[in-house]
Amino acid sequence: MTKHQQQHDSPLQQRLRTIIFGTDTVAGRTFDIALIVCIICSVALVFLNTVQSVNQRFGSLILGLEWFFTVVFTVEYGLRLYSSTNSWKYARSFYGLVDLLSVLPSYLALFVPGANLTLVIRVLRLFRIFRVLKLLRYLSEGNMLLRAMLLSSRKVFIFFFSVSLIIMVLGAVMYVVEGPENGFSSIPKSVYWTIVTITTVGYGDITPKTGLGQTIAAFTMLLGYSIIAIPTGILTAEIGQEMGRVRDLRRCANCLKTGHEHQAKYCSRCGSELEAALSPEKESRE
Amino acid sequence: MTKHQQQHDSPLQQRLRTIIFGTDTVAGRTFDIALIVCIICSVALVFLNTVQSVNQRFGSLILGLEWFFTVVFTVEYGLRLYSSTNSWKYARSFYGLVDLLSVLPSYLALFVPGANLTLVIRVLRLFRIFRVLKLLRYLSEGNMLLRAMLLSSRKVFIFFFSVSLIIMVLGAVMYVVEGPENGFSSIPKSVYWTIVTITTVGYGDITPKTGLGQTIAAFTMLLGYSIIAIPTGILTAEIGQEMGRVRDLRRCANCLKTGHEHQAKYCSRCGSELEAALSPEKESRE
Amino acid sequence: MTKHQQQHDSPLQQRLRTIIFGTDTVAGRTFDIALIVCIICSVALVFLNTVQSVNQRFGSLILGLEWFFTVVFTVEYGLRLYSSTNSWKYARSFYGLVDLLSVLPSYLALFVPGANLTLVIRVLRLFRIFRVLKLLRYLSEGNMLLRAMLLSSRKVFIFFFSVSLIIMVLGAVMYVVEGPENGFSSIPKSVYWTIVTITTVGYGDITPKTGLGQTIAAFTMLLGYSIIAIPTGILTAEIGQEMGRVRDLRRCANCLKTGHEHQAKYCSRCGSELEAALSPEKESRE
Amino acid sequence: MTKHQQQHDSPLQQRLRTIIFGTDTVAGRTFDIALIVCIICSVALVFLNTVQSVNQRFGSLILGLEWFFTVVFTVEYGLRLYSSTNSWKYARSFYGLVDLLSVLPSYLALFVPGANLTLVIRVLRLFRIFRVLKLLRYLSEGNMLLRAMLLSSRKVFIFFFSVSLIIMVLGAVMYVVEGPENGFSSIPKSVYWTIVTITTVGYGDITPKTGLGQTIAAFTMLLGYSIIAIPTGILTAEIGQEMGRVRDLRRCANCLKTGHEHQAKYCSRCGSELEAALSPEKESRE
Repeated sequence: MTKHQQQHDSPLQQRLRTIIFGTDTVAGRTFDIALIVCIICSVALVFLNTVQSVNQRFGSLILGLEWFFTVVFTVEYGLRLYSSTNSWKYARSFYGLVDLLSVLPSYLALFVPGANLTLVIRVLRLFRIFRVLKLLRYLSEGNMLLRAMLLSSRKVFIFFFSVSLIIMVLGAVMYVVEGPENGFSSIPKSVYWTIVTITTVGYGDITPKTGLGQTIAAFTMLLGYSIIAIPTGILTAEIGQEMGRVRDLRRCANCLKTGHEHQAKYCSRCGSELEAALSPEKESRE
Repeated sequence: MTKHQQQHDSPLQQRLRTIIFGTDTVAGRTFDIALIVCIICSVALVFLNTVQSVNQRFGSLILGLEWFFTVVFTVEYGLRLYSSTNSWKYARSFYGLVDLLSVLPSYLALFVPGANLTLVIRVLRLFRIFRVLKLLRYLSEGNMLLRAMLLSSRKVFIFFFSVSLIIMVLGAVMYVVEGPENGFSSIPKSVYWTIVTITTVGYGDITPKTGLGQTIAAFTMLLGYSIIAIPTGILTAEIGQEMGRVRDLRRCANCLKTGHEHQAKYCSRCGSELEAALSPEKESRE
Repeated sequence: MTKHQQQHDSPLQQRLRTIIFGTDTVAGRTFDIALIVCIICSVALVFLNTVQSVNQRFGSLILGLEWFFTVVFTVEYGLRLYSSTNSWKYARSFYGLVDLLSVLPSYLALFVPGANLTLVIRVLRLFRIFRVLKLLRYLSEGNMLLRAMLLSSRKVFIFFFSVSLIIMVLGAVMYVVEGPENGFSSIPKSVYWTIVTITTVGYGDITPKTGLGQTIAAFTMLLGYSIIAIPTGILTAEIGQEMGRVRDLRRCANCLKTGHEHQAKYCSRCGSELEAALSPEKESRE
Repeated sequence: MTKHQQQHDSPLQQRLRTIIFGTDTVAGRTFDIALIVCIICSVALVFLNTVQSVNQRFGSLILGLEWFFTVVFTVEYGLRLYSSTNSWKYARSFYGLVDLLSVLPSYLALFVPGANLTLVIRVLRLFRIFRVLKLLRYLSEGNMLLRAMLLSSRKVFIFFFSVSLIIMVLGAVMYVVEGPENGFSSIPKSVYWTIVTITTVGYGDITPKTGLGQTIAAFTMLLGYSIIAIPTGILTAEIGQEMGRVRDLRRCANCLKTGHEHQAKYCSRCGSELEAALSPEKESRE
């Protein structure tokens, strides 16, 4: 596909493009919803097929439905390739590869039966839902969360780095204290136990038996219980700042005051009219 | 019951209405508290009756008390129907149906013995307590929490949607890594394990046995441990905003300044007296 | 003891009072610290005595030390009675009863051997430490936390009331779904399981076995995981407000502006000097 | 090494010092990264060596690599001693001792075979990574977290002190209620159970069996679930204040106004230019 072709694409291509890639028309939105339903149904089939009782009773039905969805996704992939302004660019894009990966495993399974890896790849189809949502309205809320997470990422990294060191040292200490006879058979396993404990998951598959071990375990739990607060504190402060950021964007033309209330129409200091708010989306991208 | 009847309802009906539906009189409040006590006692009976040792010793006593409460609730339902200004409208309303549902199961159990479903419906009586509380003072606090939750619902939806996708992919991966021989007998069960782990519940009924599985499990735990912060962050910021919202409602008539402190009587900018605060309840409903 | 006696108490009584009830002198502070050490040691003895191996080896030594501390606390209680300005008022006060309770169990154990209840009462001695701390410096931080908790108590009550109803309904549903054959032997036990799950504790002593039960369990966990955020959100907003309250207390004598920064010496609006800050402690008690 | 020597140190010493202690040159940064890689590899070896299957197959290889890293760290320690301006001061400093400790265990293991303690000390090498990070950029984020933690430490201490008392009393109560026959074999073990429960870890190695015990356990869980919010609330409020503190540092030279927005160049009140912000680092150290 060349640039030449793009300018002369048929009306059918244009029509398909607005339906498949667009979300403004009724047809486009219907296509998106139908696609989400297909994705969820096909993944649900993959999930149910691993339940032995379901597999024994409805095995052939599920196989049939799986091929039906494979054909649907293959046709969809073909149409996307055909209707996109630059097919090759689409094929190499992130979502192009995801679309291809949601089709390939079924065909591969014909030649390599019982391949477990294809099962995981089939589940990755779910991420295609994100693309649809991205085009819809939920973008700004997700973006706001992502921004807050990115802004706090350095603090969170420092936090997790320190926690990792503490986990490793505690793991080594517990291995020495409890030893292989109490289930702490190696330091990696002991580190696994420390993570299970410090995150307050607490499976109970490995538990300390000695008094000293239980004391260290109690200390580890209280540590986990109190440091659980830190990422929350960082993120909460950041989300609060992110929510308040909208206030700081306008500047009064008369007295240079910034930080007006969001809905204010007049400057709270000099009373002169304020300009319409700049979109916070655009400002914060820089 | 017709509109005609409503206007000519007897003094008895009017008196009953103030007692049953009202909360302003002493009699009305006494009725509400007596009703809450009856509901709690009747549900406690349902709970205790499922304990085998209690059932064997006090079975007939509990049966007798249950019929007593059934009669009480039947009479109450009859009085509500009789005294409400529009009986048919009450009968079709949400609480009218809840009131009926709190009476019906006991009668149904006469014909369909051992019906477990009636047991759950009987417990739903508890929701009738909400009606009583709704009329009392706790409304505004609950409303404020609900508003904050509604305002953050889009962000929380995005969050739970993303977490669901991660849970499903991790479930599929763990099924492939651990397999049925280690308790991960199907992907739905593996997803159940992922939820048990990521929410830091950690029953320990299914635990990873292989090294790779334990590594992925450790990653899942740390993920759950850190993303536990996100809904908290969203909600905290929203509650903080909701608490601060009251400040933004008044506008100085002299200098147009908004955002005064809640208890302020004079404008903090020009010193002119402020009007009484508008009820935040009314403002925020639009 | 009468009012007459109070005015004529001996110098010894006065001296003892400053040591035992006061914290301003070196002797008073030394007494407090010695008392805390005695309390902690005596409770540690009670704890260690229940460990079988320790009890067998050091049983008689521990018994001796316990009687030593009992005598110490008895003497202390006597001195408090003797030196307080109004002995009878002290004896009936909360801490007077706590002091008595920390002495009585040992004497009771002479007549009623093996009484387990005396063991718990002995541990309650720990609360005497609070009295000592109360007199020391940690009061204001604790008060600030308590105030924030009291202010948010209505919202937290509404929250826990709603959660309780959800827990009970979920408990009843799980009893019907899983039934006694899977460990959910009665609704109270089923409610216990729901609490174990919704608080993300997850012992694993009772776990759902059926597919539907595991689905409801997964829903319960995700619910608990997300509503864990709500009390945090309420309390964080309240603590934030409590911290910011100090700002609102001063009012500029010239322009009536309130809400100055905490350390500001001049009014940020008119530049006139501000009075010294009123103690936030005193203001917020009303 | 004397002061005399410091002033006449050879060009080689100076060159080594910029590489080993400095981070400004390319060589210095390369050295730091190489050191981090060596530390992580050597600790990973210690961890893997405790896995039996790995130990049996690669035991001699791991032993060889461990001696290689020991030699590397010995040479590094020697170079640090040689190149530092004051060798004796370095040797006695915290990091000097850590550096020595990361070398000693391997030599000790020659004489005292199977010494488990040396294993833990070897893992402590990880803390050397902090020194490297300290010199790099992550300092300010970490410092900000530390400051917020220090500022909230009194409130957190009060909180943990109160929680400790509650844990001990609950532990004693559970010992009396459940008794040794249900796994609560002593009060210390019962306290361990209370910590496991109140932190929502929930191993399930000890669980209440009696109805009363399960009721107290349910209460303990709900308590833990709700007080988990308190340290988060304290820390979040403190981090929010810490983030906002930067605003309070500048004071307008013209109108004395403080509390300007962080990036503001002009005073929001009088429009006169503001001086460059003082480093918050320096201000808050006092």
